[in-house]
Amino acid sequence: MPEDRIDQLYIVTCTAPVNIAVIKYWGKRNEDLILPINSSLSVTLHQDQLKTTTTVATSRSFQEDRIWLNGKEEDVTHPRLQSCLREIRRLARKRRNDGDPCMDSAGLSQKVHICSVNNFPTAAGLASSAAGFACLVYTLARVFGIEGELSGIARQGSGSACRSIYGGFVQWIMGNKEDGKDSLAQQVEPETHWPELRILVLVASAERKPVGSTSGMQTSVKTSCLLKHRAESVVPGRMVKMIEAIRKKDFAAFGELTMQDSNQFHATCLDTYPPIFYLNHVSQQIISLVHRYNKHYGETRVAYTFDAGPNAVIFTLQQHVPEFVQVVQHFFPPETNGADFVQGLPVNCASLSEELKQSIGLEPVPKGINYIISTKAGPGPCVVKDPTQHLLSSDGFPKKMIAV
Amino acid sequence: MPEDRIDQLYIVTCTAPVNIAVIKYWGKRNEDLILPINSSLSVTLHQDQLKTTTTVATSRSFQEDRIWLNGKEEDVTHPRLQSCLREIRRLARKRRNDGDPCMDSAGLSQKVHICSVNNFPTAAGLASSAAGFACLVYTLARVFGIEGELSGIARQGSGSACRSIYGGFVQWIMGNKEDGKDSLAQQVEPETHWPELRILVLVASAERKPVGSTSGMQTSVKTSCLLKHRAESVVPGRMVKMIEAIRKKDFAAFGELTMQDSNQFHATCLDTYPPIFYLNHVSQQIISLVHRYNKHYGETRVAYTFDAGPNAVIFTLQQHVPEFVQVVQHFFPPETNGADFVQGLPVNCASLSEELKQSIGLEPVPKGINYIISTKAGPGPCVVKDPTQHLLSSDGFPKKMIAV
Repeated sequence: MPEDRIDQLYIVTCTAPVNIAVIKYWGKRNEDLILPINSSLSVTLHQDQLKTTTTVATSRSFQEDRIWLNGKEEDVTHPRLQSCLREIRRLARKRRNDGDPCMDSAGLSQKVHICSVNNFPTAAGLASSAAGFACLVYTLARVFGIEGELSGIARQGSGSACRSIYGGFVQWIMGNKEDGKDSLAQQVEPETHWPELRILVLVASAERKPVGSTSGMQTSVKTSCLLKHRAESVVPGRMVKMIEAIRKKDFAAFGELTMQDSNQFHATCLDTYPPIFYLNHVSQQIISLVHRYNKHYGETRVAYTFDAGPNAVIFTLQQHVPEFVQVVQHFFPPETNGADFVQGLPVNCASLSEELKQSIGLEPVPKGINYIISTKAGPGPCVVKDPTQHLLSSDGFPKKMIAV
Repeated sequence: MPEDRIDQLYIVTCTAPVNIAVIKYWGKRNEDLILPINSSLSVTLHQDQLKTTTTVATSRSFQEDRIWLNGKEEDVTHPRLQSCLREIRRLARKRRNDGDPCMDSAGLSQKVHICSVNNFPTAAGLASSAAGFACLVYTLARVFGIEGELSGIARQGSGSACRSIYGGFVQWIMGNKEDGKDSLAQQVEPETHWPELRILVLVASAERKPVGSTSGMQTSVKTSCLLKHRAESVVPGRMVKMIEAIRKKDFAAFGELTMQDSNQFHATCLDTYPPIFYLNHVSQQIISLVHRYNKHYGETRVAYTFDAGPNAVIFTLQQHVPEFVQVVQHFFPPETNGADFVQGLPVNCASLSEELKQSIGLEPVPKGINYIISTKAGPGPCVVKDPTQHLLSSDGFPKKMIAV
């Protein structure tokens, strides 16, 4: 264990991405191991716009495992966090017992300090647990010298975290073993595969806190007969079609299936008893807007997907971004003059034709969308080499940070 | 043909009820014959509150079939109207040919004038086509002396009209013959079976005209794989359970299944591509309110169901009506002082405990509900004996009416 071990402190910092499912994961067949009732597929978002950064330090002087998330110490005994720590240490022990000379048996018994921050506000409701657990597992693996498959461990932190272990287009194959050993993520295509693809996160202002996804999916599995049918009979065919659409870079096929799968996921939420609503008035308006926009052009230029929260994620091709952003800004007039309305990748100006506005013909919803994050597909987790970026200082405690 | 035939005018007036499905009909397997993809079950509402009245006259002097709906002459060549007229005349001819002495062969060749009105505003969005076609078919049958099964003819006017041919609790058995001869309605229990059952129609103010049910269900059949599964694998079991709950007057079972089936119907609308939304912000609020109300009491006291429009229909037992109406009035404060907020069957006053209000804990939505129609299960179509009630005068043309 090399250079960064100073004064008995071994310290590693990594970053990991957010991912957005286009074939949705909803429902577990095993709650402890986090095994899903169907496979799913996602696009990894670029870390230039959205990422989690995690620093892990080990030291002989640490009395116990501790964790700080976004500037606040959290309970390290959280079962899913413990699952990840336990799995990583088990693999490390296995390597040492298998006689790997790199494995430092002293480091293995040391406690860890973990510090993690997101570069996006938690209030944005961008399911940060996927990026968070992927980053934790990836960083712990670096600290303990683990190589190879990590998605199975990340999965045990948060199901969808397994997909954030890879960049580009990623499938989570549900597997069928009881112990979950074959429930792993796999890259379908790298982030360089479809350079024209663009992603717009429309950050909506939520009025009320929706049902959390863990308890929501439990209720759905128990009560929705449509969910069971979806998982068993619909998703397998959609996985094949979605992979094909991505391989061929067929935006119409990709976009339509993305929208259909988002709608079906929300349909199973509505079929849950009591029903769960994640789509609000603004979401319904975005859905109408996208369908009317596509109808105006007679082709699928834009597609939406919604997770267990109020934000919309829009997929489109680079050439349509400027106009569509204008459309969004027109039908969801922002509070301010719109200066900070678009964040992330720069978006060129565009003008809107009266014909298009009339063709969409919706009543504008002022302040329905707070802002847009413009991004694209990006790589998987990375090690941060620059030691000034560590979130823990040389005493093993969080550096002073400004909460975001 | 007796007393009412004056000056060659034979005139009959009947009324027919609205029905509300608790196991929903959505999707046809045959568009022309109106054959459904699943059986359905409804409660017939009492005509004291909601009814259609239809007068049919025949006369040698009439040059052509004509129809007036709610004071306005409409196109008599409408295919579904023609289906009903053709079927009734076919049966009448058959009876004459079979040698029925009552059958007047002259009357058979005469043209009809039809005049129909609802005692509720069309704007209330209370799917009036079911009551309308049931009333038309029932009245025509009286005019042409047809007895026996009429639901198969009413079905060809509007699918759910077949259920308005009976009072009380009515199932529409989907049948499986290609010619639809076995796709008929049947009374499960009469309107006297469950006297404590009460129905509240919460008339909502719709912001926009939703997708019509005819085209909506066509798109759903074409695009929703969840609808196919629902029709084939979910509804058959639910029909059995619903009939059992009604027979046993088990409100909890009846109410829960009613809510689940309403939600599943709307789930299949959301699974339709492009998706169809009938539930708006107010509907979602009513759904939350009902679940929270029931949770407060630890039992299912109230149940909701929503059709292809914004109105909610609430089922409850007589003893819970006063409090629940107060709850609705509290969380949907009416525009005025609430004087005309409740129409129909009288509702006693009740007070709301602070505990209940807090337990529900929703943000009130002012003017979300226009008014409530308080009603109960009621009988099927009836003949109106009083000749002053005819909608056509002795010249065979509509009496002057005040549009409602």
